[in-house]
Amino acid sequence: MKLSMHAMSVDVFTHALGSLSAFLEKGQAHATQKKFEPAVLLASRLAPDMFPLTRQVQLACDLAKNSIARLVGQEPPRFPDTETSFEELHARIARTIDYLKSVPASALEGAETRDLKVPTRGETLEFKGLAFLQHWAIPNVFFHVTTAYLILRHNGVELGKRDFLGNPR
Amino acid sequence: MKLSMHAMSVDVFTHALGSLSAFLEKGQAHATQKKFEPAVLLASRLAPDMFPLTRQVQLACDLAKNSIARLVGQEPPRFPDTETSFEELHARIARTIDYLKSVPASALEGAETRDLKVPTRGETLEFKGLAFLQHWAIPNVFFHVTTAYLILRHNGVELGKRDFLGNPR
Repeated sequence: MKLSMHAMSVDVFTHALGSLSAFLEKGQAHATQKKFEPAVLLASRLAPDMFPLTRQVQLACDLAKNSIARLVGQEPPRFPDTETSFEELHARIARTIDYLKSVPASALEGAETRDLKVPTRGETLEFKGLAFLQHWAIPNVFFHVTTAYLILRHNGVELGKRDFLGNPR
Repeated sequence: MKLSMHAMSVDVFTHALGSLSAFLEKGQAHATQKKFEPAVLLASRLAPDMFPLTRQVQLACDLAKNSIARLVGQEPPRFPDTETSFEELHARIARTIDYLKSVPASALEGAETRDLKVPTRGETLEFKGLAFLQHWAIPNVFFHVTTAYLILRHNGVELGKRDFLGNPR
């Protein structure tokens, strides 16, 4: 066995998005059980100038999908940001995972040495593929998955670290 | 260049802990500027049954340090959980980074195929080194770094994604 870019990107993101989907279900079940509108959770945020839950989920998906597309030099599929329900967010996560799984390991071979340009609001960042994965893609995906988890936790949804990690083996 | 376990663990965690240290400084500066006790931030949490900021920082350090030690088959250095100030937390992060940097890339070669046992509260988890890194060590470290960031953000500290990511290149 050799460590591959695929194992450290597609596999890691697919697993994290699977956990995200599973703990979102617990959020929705919590709303049903407590008899409040699930949309209340979707609009919740941890600071007035942070994005709410819906956007955190969209961003987790987009950062996973767009990062993989960048690493393989593809144009990523674009998903409109129109979700207004847990069901629609689950569908977006599923579409994202489908895209990730469509990328074969061979397409990511050697991606660690590729030169990548990442346009951000302020400037265009230039990376080698490895640094992009280490210090941009992985931290960003986990940032938004963790934020989604914490918005639910902050609102009283009963979740534990196991829900965040999923089944790690 | 070949993708290495060292690049995907020691490098990733060292960078994330460096960002953690830098945004904690902004938290402390915020307290000074707003004239409240920095310890208020250290005791803040996002849910009554979650750990406060101090413990999140301790856990980020321990998960980085202990994960690397597990991967190389060493006994990790133990740090007592006695920090009561930002200064002491910075010192813990610095000690953790020193340990991470003391592990040579050669010690992690082949760690992806090692059989690891991770005792948790409920049971002992068994992993291959690769799955341990993908689905345990990386998610756990970023969970606690992100939670530390969000506790500060939730308390009005002016931070942006750039503070979380550090200088990604």
